[in-house]
Amino acid sequence: MLSVVILGTGNVAFHLAKVLSSNNSVELLQVYGRNKTKLQAFEPFCDTTDNLGKLAAAAIYLVAVSDGAITALTQQLAGLDGVVAHTSGAVSLEVIDHPRPGVFYPLQTFTRDKKIPFAEVPICLEARHPNDLRLLAQLAGKLSGAVHRIDSAQRRQLHLAAIWVNNFTNHLLYIGQQLCEEKGLSFSLLQPLIQETVDKIQQLSPKEAQTGPARRRDVQTIQTHLDILEAPLQKKIYQLLSESIKSTYEKEL
Amino acid sequence: MLSVVILGTGNVAFHLAKVLSSNNSVELLQVYGRNKTKLQAFEPFCDTTDNLGKLAAAAIYLVAVSDGAITALTQQLAGLDGVVAHTSGAVSLEVIDHPRPGVFYPLQTFTRDKKIPFAEVPICLEARHPNDLRLLAQLAGKLSGAVHRIDSAQRRQLHLAAIWVNNFTNHLLYIGQQLCEEKGLSFSLLQPLIQETVDKIQQLSPKEAQTGPARRRDVQTIQTHLDILEAPLQKKIYQLLSESIKSTYEKEL
Repeated sequence: MLSVVILGTGNVAFHLAKVLSSNNSVELLQVYGRNKTKLQAFEPFCDTTDNLGKLAAAAIYLVAVSDGAITALTQQLAGLDGVVAHTSGAVSLEVIDHPRPGVFYPLQTFTRDKKIPFAEVPICLEARHPNDLRLLAQLAGKLSGAVHRIDSAQRRQLHLAAIWVNNFTNHLLYIGQQLCEEKGLSFSLLQPLIQETVDKIQQLSPKEAQTGPARRRDVQTIQTHLDILEAPLQKKIYQLLSESIKSTYEKEL
Repeated sequence: MLSVVILGTGNVAFHLAKVLSSNNSVELLQVYGRNKTKLQAFEPFCDTTDNLGKLAAAAIYLVAVSDGAITALTQQLAGLDGVVAHTSGAVSLEVIDHPRPGVFYPLQTFTRDKKIPFAEVPICLEARHPNDLRLLAQLAGKLSGAVHRIDSAQRRQLHLAAIWVNNFTNHLLYIGQQLCEEKGLSFSLLQPLIQETVDKIQQLSPKEAQTGPARRRDVQTIQTHLDILEAPLQKKIYQLLSESIKSTYEKEL
């Protein structure tokens, strides 16, 4: 059975612990974290420890800590055999200071209180040694049907793309909600539109799916919206996104 | 039976004609358009005309033309009885120069080649006379289960919110696709993430659902992304959206 230890107590660690502990063909041995209070949330899943000296011997160590903490933590794992894989989209394989480095990057957004359908989450793998890659692929295959070998430069770009389609998109939804609430309108009025925005791109490319005043160069509507918007930062973002849409369709008009 | 004439040949006119012509309790009498070629697409649905003098007598005229053309067109309908309702989110009831003005605004994004599940589309209504509002509500109720009376100021705000959650969101998806393709990555890798972004807000508010480097003030990742981004306009948008996310969570850190 594939044995795993998770290092970290954030959202990614939590969702990995949850899904791995419920998988019959994986043995989640332990979760390590410095913060005892945060570790408590992991007690239902497996053994926990705040002592690096007491880490269990595992085939794979998944390091789900903040990007800046990966190097320092992995240096302390020098004596352990097993693949040491970080779960980050943003940093290279090289930040891992261990002879068997790997990357196990689940391309998804993880919030504590929201279940994740792992079966469809692309898991992007990288390793220095072919045998380690096979080991990571074996683990990934137990969680997801979408396992990809992706190098560090591609993964960094994928993570950047993910920021646009998730972090920034979610922030636009937040602004939409605020605008509704300012005028006593329920945010639920926008739900079918939000769903359709995403449904559309199953059938059309985002380039074809674009509608709205910026695409049709409706200067008057754009000006009205800039006049209504009260927050200066929102005005600027509205202006730049409209400009970016206009320039995308420039040659077509 | 409720009789309807549609004026206009754009995407909103097309989807309204399609759904109204297939509804057994509505009689779609005619579609009017100036452009004979564009009118051809409407021939499967009902009678068409490019002659305003030959408009059929109907209970409701749905004016689905560009915002700037509504006043001039409705002035030419002065002699007709029936409610004259525009379908725009952006302009007030007052732009209609007819004694029985109304608004019939379907809050959705319409692309020609994508079917619309009308039953869930919020239809926002406004009219000067209570009887006319009832007539519009009768028509809207035949298409959708979400019919709302919304005044011009609220509708304008709702339209502005719709720009953020649809037009701008779709453009962010386009940028995400471009970034993938630049490095030979399939856009389909991002699909589960995009779906999850929207699924999340069924359960959490967008404010709670926010993740990513800007929320956790990960200055280094933000700087790396700004370094990778090649288009100056995209750099600026990345910067402003990150700033806006940071300021949203300022007090929490």
